[in-house]
Amino acid sequence: MRIDVLSLFPNMFSGVFGSSILKQAQESGIVNYSVVDFREYSSSKHKKVDDYPYGGGAGMVLSPQPIFDAVTALTNNSESRPRVVLLCPQGQRYSQAKAEEFAKEEHLILLCGHYEGYDERIREHLVDDEVSIGDYVLTGGELGAMVIVDSVTRLLPGVLGNAESAMTDSFSTGLLEHPHYTRPADFRGMKVPDVLLSGHHKNIENWRHQESLRRTWTRRPDLLENKTLTKDELDLIDDFPKKNNS
Amino acid sequence: MRIDVLSLFPNMFSGVFGSSILKQAQESGIVNYSVVDFREYSSSKHKKVDDYPYGGGAGMVLSPQPIFDAVTALTNNSESRPRVVLLCPQGQRYSQAKAEEFAKEEHLILLCGHYEGYDERIREHLVDDEVSIGDYVLTGGELGAMVIVDSVTRLLPGVLGNAESAMTDSFSTGLLEHPHYTRPADFRGMKVPDVLLSGHHKNIENWRHQESLRRTWTRRPDLLENKTLTKDELDLIDDFPKKNNS
Repeated sequence: MRIDVLSLFPNMFSGVFGSSILKQAQESGIVNYSVVDFREYSSSKHKKVDDYPYGGGAGMVLSPQPIFDAVTALTNNSESRPRVVLLCPQGQRYSQAKAEEFAKEEHLILLCGHYEGYDERIREHLVDDEVSIGDYVLTGGELGAMVIVDSVTRLLPGVLGNAESAMTDSFSTGLLEHPHYTRPADFRGMKVPDVLLSGHHKNIENWRHQESLRRTWTRRPDLLENKTLTKDELDLIDDFPKKNNS
Repeated sequence: MRIDVLSLFPNMFSGVFGSSILKQAQESGIVNYSVVDFREYSSSKHKKVDDYPYGGGAGMVLSPQPIFDAVTALTNNSESRPRVVLLCPQGQRYSQAKAEEFAKEEHLILLCGHYEGYDERIREHLVDDEVSIGDYVLTGGELGAMVIVDSVTRLLPGVLGNAESAMTDSFSTGLLEHPHYTRPADFRGMKVPDVLLSGHHKNIENWRHQESLRRTWTRRPDLLENKTLTKDELDLIDDFPKKNNS
């Protein structure tokens, strides 16, 4: 897979692309990242990339020319039609389902504005998807691009080792993870629940399922709305508020 | 403000903390970031930070000792009690309201696990907030920590210049932003809407409000649920599906 990022701040990406699983995925040839400063594609004398908005108002707007020409240059080198994704607050909320969709592409281009707006013609004529990673205000699209690169890369075959994929699998139940404990059994007076030390596998499994359900019910009840629960699970939930609210 | 990040991959942060507004905020003394590798605090011979889970199962769990001791060391140097935030998929969804809350603190400690789980005693006895930046699977908490640092820093007084804050202000209406256009008026046959070239301020304002409402209605109707709309706005919305679906 090939992922190109267009950004005015290419140095922001070095630490993230050069560490851990992303670094390994690139070194093993599974994915190829590049970060392109689209200022290089500006045809203006001073390499300008933005201009004042038509109709007035404060703030600057990214001009269409440098971005159109950068995408065209990246597309010309590509065997397949790339999918062009714009990071912006007005975009569709990014989700694991979207990550899975993007992971099937051969070539992604991620377009990051900084605090400027985008000329609307970029959205209308160049972009396939507009994506937002959450309802908070960030300085630019760069962190969103990193989120997409990380979440997509880890879905590519051969990227994750067993240890990493084991922790990820716990999401597939549709419930939040149960609590984890490791040694020591007594850390400065804080103890591991007896059941986990019991060696009784069935009880451990039950405890984990119950805690997973409890945590989901108290923290993210929205995750249960579309989930079919067994009668036992529903009985457990009925008991939660009386037993414990945390 | 002081922000300490605890991570096993401190190099991931250099590019983001060293660019743009975050760099300027640190250079001007408004905020002080540091990234601490909590492996340095491990008291084990080989600087181990994780161990097998009690009760069995795949995956590793971060041990309490290195993280407790790292937080204690950072707290001892602090004049005020820090707020300790854990990045994890089970956390509360991060939002602009949370960013505003964090921006009022004098000292934040952001705790990033990598793909391992956390020993539950860390959550119960050390952490004030558990936060998730979205419903997607990431390799670690590092990108979430960067999102918090960026969104919080830009709220601190003196950080944003006029150009940046102007673009941000548009979020405060509770609607998605209207389209922006800049020069040229005709870019390779793609034209700017006539109204924006008309110089008629009232018409421009009306057009922008209508497009802002249209975009919110079609893309993020959830944002309208808690908003009181005027009769004119409701009439506009009634017309949208008949006029245009995009």
